[in-house]
Amino acid sequence: MMDARTIGFIGLGQMGGPMAGRLLRAGYPLVVHDARPEAAKPLLDQGANWAESPAAVARRATTIITIVPSSIEVRALLTGTEGLLSTLQPGSVLLEMTTSDPAVTRELAALVEARGAVLLDAPVSGGVKGAREGTLSIMVGGAEAVLEDVRPILGRLGAKIFHVGPVGAGHAMKLVNNVCSAAALLVTAEAVAVATRAGIDPARAVDILQVSSGRSNASDWKFPQFILTGRFDAGFAIRLMVKDLDGYARLARETGVPSLLGTAAAECYRMALARGMAEEDHTAVVRLIEEWARVQLRGGKEKSV
Amino acid sequence: MMDARTIGFIGLGQMGGPMAGRLLRAGYPLVVHDARPEAAKPLLDQGANWAESPAAVARRATTIITIVPSSIEVRALLTGTEGLLSTLQPGSVLLEMTTSDPAVTRELAALVEARGAVLLDAPVSGGVKGAREGTLSIMVGGAEAVLEDVRPILGRLGAKIFHVGPVGAGHAMKLVNNVCSAAALLVTAEAVAVATRAGIDPARAVDILQVSSGRSNASDWKFPQFILTGRFDAGFAIRLMVKDLDGYARLARETGVPSLLGTAAAECYRMALARGMAEEDHTAVVRLIEEWARVQLRGGKEKSV
Repeated sequence: MMDARTIGFIGLGQMGGPMAGRLLRAGYPLVVHDARPEAAKPLLDQGANWAESPAAVARRATTIITIVPSSIEVRALLTGTEGLLSTLQPGSVLLEMTTSDPAVTRELAALVEARGAVLLDAPVSGGVKGAREGTLSIMVGGAEAVLEDVRPILGRLGAKIFHVGPVGAGHAMKLVNNVCSAAALLVTAEAVAVATRAGIDPARAVDILQVSSGRSNASDWKFPQFILTGRFDAGFAIRLMVKDLDGYARLARETGVPSLLGTAAAECYRMALARGMAEEDHTAVVRLIEEWARVQLRGGKEKSV
Repeated sequence: MMDARTIGFIGLGQMGGPMAGRLLRAGYPLVVHDARPEAAKPLLDQGANWAESPAAVARRATTIITIVPSSIEVRALLTGTEGLLSTLQPGSVLLEMTTSDPAVTRELAALVEARGAVLLDAPVSGGVKGAREGTLSIMVGGAEAVLEDVRPILGRLGAKIFHVGPVGAGHAMKLVNNVCSAAALLVTAEAVAVATRAGIDPARAVDILQVSSGRSNASDWKFPQFILTGRFDAGFAIRLMVKDLDGYARLARETGVPSLLGTAAAECYRMALARGMAEEDHTAVVRLIEEWARVQLRGGKEKSV
């Protein structure tokens, strides 16, 4: 019944869904689970097998991927009733691809180790497009030898795979990445709003940033794709960004590093949360700045005020 | 004595020096001036002519480029004793390439216009390397027809030339660019310091940012070139960055746009100024963050504390 190559996959959301699909199409037998069973439908249609619980996944697979919203869900998946830890087989490898809190990751890794298994943290960057196309960047924390064992699997999901450090380092690196991403998006939004009010077309301002020292992923990708178009559908919610910025703030506190820019970014996103924008895309934080500035960056026209 | 193609060039510093050199090598007769005459030496050796004052430049050229530290120097160049305005010929074109305050630029443009001449603001991005290689981005504010007339000259200096809007819009856009550049540098520095204290090699963290959503000019260029190497020689001083961030803050106030990230970036740079780092390179602000975090990002070793 069980093929040694079988992969257990838990979390079939905007990222996990397309990632699981890629593994299936690469020929890996898949046992899948999600808190919302309907999320599994497209994968089951392609031949994946359903498992009723995390425990059922760990009974049927020794390589298990988890990618869920946060450490809260990861902890529940592992330690809850019918959780992974209740049935985890010795020698299993858990690839924890959630953007998690590194302190929680280290704690959970110790529980996994106590069962004779191994946890690697392996969060990703590259968004829904990267998940679909297998071009993610993957930041791995934990035993390097184990990473070598699972590299063929990760190679189906990502174009760049980095060993970052001990367990938890991958998750720390992901938070570090996300604070850079958030701050660049916010400063670009503020600055393009200023430019627009100063009479510059916002799309032109973004064009110029793209070839100047102010360039970032915000000017190169998020503005053209999700903001200037008014689509706001990068596939990553404001509540998740707030969770990550808070995780980064905790890490900065733990490591004793002052973080002025990170704090400003977090407070900006918290304002969006306070405005009831939790479920909106993280790029939609620009709407808040548009409102403050009384401009519309989409299309470039100043709103009549 | 005067060739119609003669260009007056005032300001032969880290940017202006190599830019003037390119024009000279492209065959333009050059009349040059700088507050420090010794800065002209290499150009005079290559055939440029020296002018004793801005007024002397405007007597001998009808196309005049200015690129000096700030609007303060630009105002003095124009309105001071032996200033450009005292001798400016009707029909002259003044290309003001300094990173100036757009409000001052508009005021000076009106004085130039009153003399029957035209000012275009045309600040640049791309650093000393871009100045040397002629790959600058140039952001032009002012009459589009005049831009077309001088485009061959600007084409020797920059690879991308953008008409941004009316006079002052180029300078506004440059400030908008610089706040994006400063905020990305600072958040990357903070975040890489956190990563380093969390046990991640800083060079590895920068490698990962380069291929992830946290990427920016800071991870792609400034960290590898000027920071991880410990060179801190991008050619743009902290006091100039503070000047630009203050100019941006003024513009944000004038246009009524709240600027949380811009303010945090300005305050960070002001701390560097308070530490006596005015003349150090703007990338050396990282030293301040290294000190706070008790890490060294160059070479990646944690300092013993």
